[in-house]
Amino acid sequence: MKGINFTPGPSQLYFTAEDHIRQALREGIPSLSHRTKTFEKFYQQSVDGLKELLGIPDSFFVVFTSSATEVWERIIQNLVEENSHHFVNGAFSTKFFEIAQQLNRKPTITSVKEGSGFSSSKIESPTELIALTHNETSTGVSLSMDFINSFRDQYPDALITVDAVSSLPYPQFDFSKIDSLYFSVQKGFGLPAGLGVWIVNDRCVAKAESLLSKGLSIGSYHSLPSLVSFAKKDQTPETPNVLGIYLLAQVVEDMLRRGITTIRRETEYKSAILYQALEQHHAIKPFVQEKEYQSKTVIVAQTGSQTESLVSFLQAKGLYPGDGYGKFKTEHLRFANFPAHSKETFELLVDTLTAFPA
Amino acid sequence: MKGINFTPGPSQLYFTAEDHIRQALREGIPSLSHRTKTFEKFYQQSVDGLKELLGIPDSFFVVFTSSATEVWERIIQNLVEENSHHFVNGAFSTKFFEIAQQLNRKPTITSVKEGSGFSSSKIESPTELIALTHNETSTGVSLSMDFINSFRDQYPDALITVDAVSSLPYPQFDFSKIDSLYFSVQKGFGLPAGLGVWIVNDRCVAKAESLLSKGLSIGSYHSLPSLVSFAKKDQTPETPNVLGIYLLAQVVEDMLRRGITTIRRETEYKSAILYQALEQHHAIKPFVQEKEYQSKTVIVAQTGSQTESLVSFLQAKGLYPGDGYGKFKTEHLRFANFPAHSKETFELLVDTLTAFPA
Repeated sequence: MKGINFTPGPSQLYFTAEDHIRQALREGIPSLSHRTKTFEKFYQQSVDGLKELLGIPDSFFVVFTSSATEVWERIIQNLVEENSHHFVNGAFSTKFFEIAQQLNRKPTITSVKEGSGFSSSKIESPTELIALTHNETSTGVSLSMDFINSFRDQYPDALITVDAVSSLPYPQFDFSKIDSLYFSVQKGFGLPAGLGVWIVNDRCVAKAESLLSKGLSIGSYHSLPSLVSFAKKDQTPETPNVLGIYLLAQVVEDMLRRGITTIRRETEYKSAILYQALEQHHAIKPFVQEKEYQSKTVIVAQTGSQTESLVSFLQAKGLYPGDGYGKFKTEHLRFANFPAHSKETFELLVDTLTAFPA
Repeated sequence: MKGINFTPGPSQLYFTAEDHIRQALREGIPSLSHRTKTFEKFYQQSVDGLKELLGIPDSFFVVFTSSATEVWERIIQNLVEENSHHFVNGAFSTKFFEIAQQLNRKPTITSVKEGSGFSSSKIESPTELIALTHNETSTGVSLSMDFINSFRDQYPDALITVDAVSSLPYPQFDFSKIDSLYFSVQKGFGLPAGLGVWIVNDRCVAKAESLLSKGLSIGSYHSLPSLVSFAKKDQTPETPNVLGIYLLAQVVEDMLRRGITTIRRETEYKSAILYQALEQHHAIKPFVQEKEYQSKTVIVAQTGSQTESLVSFLQAKGLYPGDGYGKFKTEHLRFANFPAHSKETFELLVDTLTAFPA
């Protein structure tokens, strides 16, 4: 593909990613043993960098999995004995709920229709874990920080876990209000797919250990205690995606140099001009109608019968939108607004959309 | 690292791997969505290529995980209700046994001391699954094909699963005698770490489905039925290591062009000259004494008190041996003999070892 990739993951590579891949080849990273000091050094660099970039307290651990999908499974195995409660408003929050079922737990659900957020944070029966999806990638619905932060005081005994797969590094979380946060690197971090990042606190580790002490299985090499004990040595239990961890360390450093404030401000600018263009458009409109639910990082356009001709029109300018997800494939287009998407690119996108002659 | 990496994984990159990584950048593979025809095409290419290279019958499925360690977990989850039986002769076969325990099964064990093979294939009590490690990476012990092939007739109801992590593509398996085979790409295939390959037959899928029908959990997104149903569409359940699958397709094609017969012949030649040099050496010797157990692909030298000075001597020539594993760290050195290690490299290694002045 020659052009700009707006698919919300795998998405456009971060500006510096290709150079870092070439540098990795020069340094022999793809053939480097993960049981070396060199590996431990960039493992630590990636963790320290993420902590600084995202404001993660030192009391949290950062561990690596192969995908955010894997994190879903590890959360249920390690943090849930019987029941989790899932706020579901699209395909990805649904998948997490289904994984809890497949692992023979008895998850409960608060669900609203696609494109909507939640009007209430009330949960009917007690639950061990509350699963929130900050940004539903399938439909471009985002939860407000007020909503996410409202659970801790209401349900002090529950673990609160937040899927930020397609929003980080943009959002600023209050880590005193959540216990677990996760993402994968092929979205907002603009890296090749194949690495998930899971951020957990001591309460999560204690819960996993309590399940284990009851004789329950919490998995094996990627149980949370195993992941954390290796993380303390800047190591992983298994041979990981070494190149992926190296690249994450480099790109996080580049983002720190650019500044998270700048990244956030640019994200908001790009999102504002795209939503404005969609609002004012004669033929298409934002799928998410209510402003408070509109994601800043995955912007979904309801393109209806214009979908196919709009795709051709955009691709002629080198702009490659993401398809609508699942049942919306023929009537939506999705536009990732990640740090790898420059302001200039978004201005071109907006100008092209506005000029769409349908 | 400038030089040749003999660590048995991550190891030396295959000769063409760097060029394929550069080509992947030109083709936009690192930002390619895994839900595209392009992805499906190279997924299929890698599977078809592996089937041809390794002589895998069409009735077997090839699925991808993030590591061989993950395959251990998936085997136990999907193929074992109560008990598996493990032939253990080193650190990696031990780890697989421990994973079965961590998943609350009741594995049984036949164990011999490190550096040895097994004199008998007798298993005392009935078992659902027999776990064999073709090549124990920690000590350089290989099981003979006769031994591996002796289980089917004796235990027709058991599933037979073979760890070939550090031996493929060299060995030629008889797929009528085994049900499951697996490896990871950072060893014999000379690729960056972060991808496991699991080859299974219908009996494995049927077993997983029978556990599921009993109401047992077989995992979630990477349950065997889920992996196989996506594989039939040249797809993966989750966002995978897209670049890893692309690179595997390319390197397998290169190996097919070179010819598996040539690769096997060269592996045998390189192994023969290295064992000969070790046998004749005044200061070091092969760790595995019995010829029938000597691995052709991971050759372990007992270097004792000479270890440190030998490492310096080899590194001065650009030859980087692998450390001994675990408790053997200070007294062994390991030499991978993979397709990425050329004959010329091995001749240099042998000449340098022979000239070692200790």
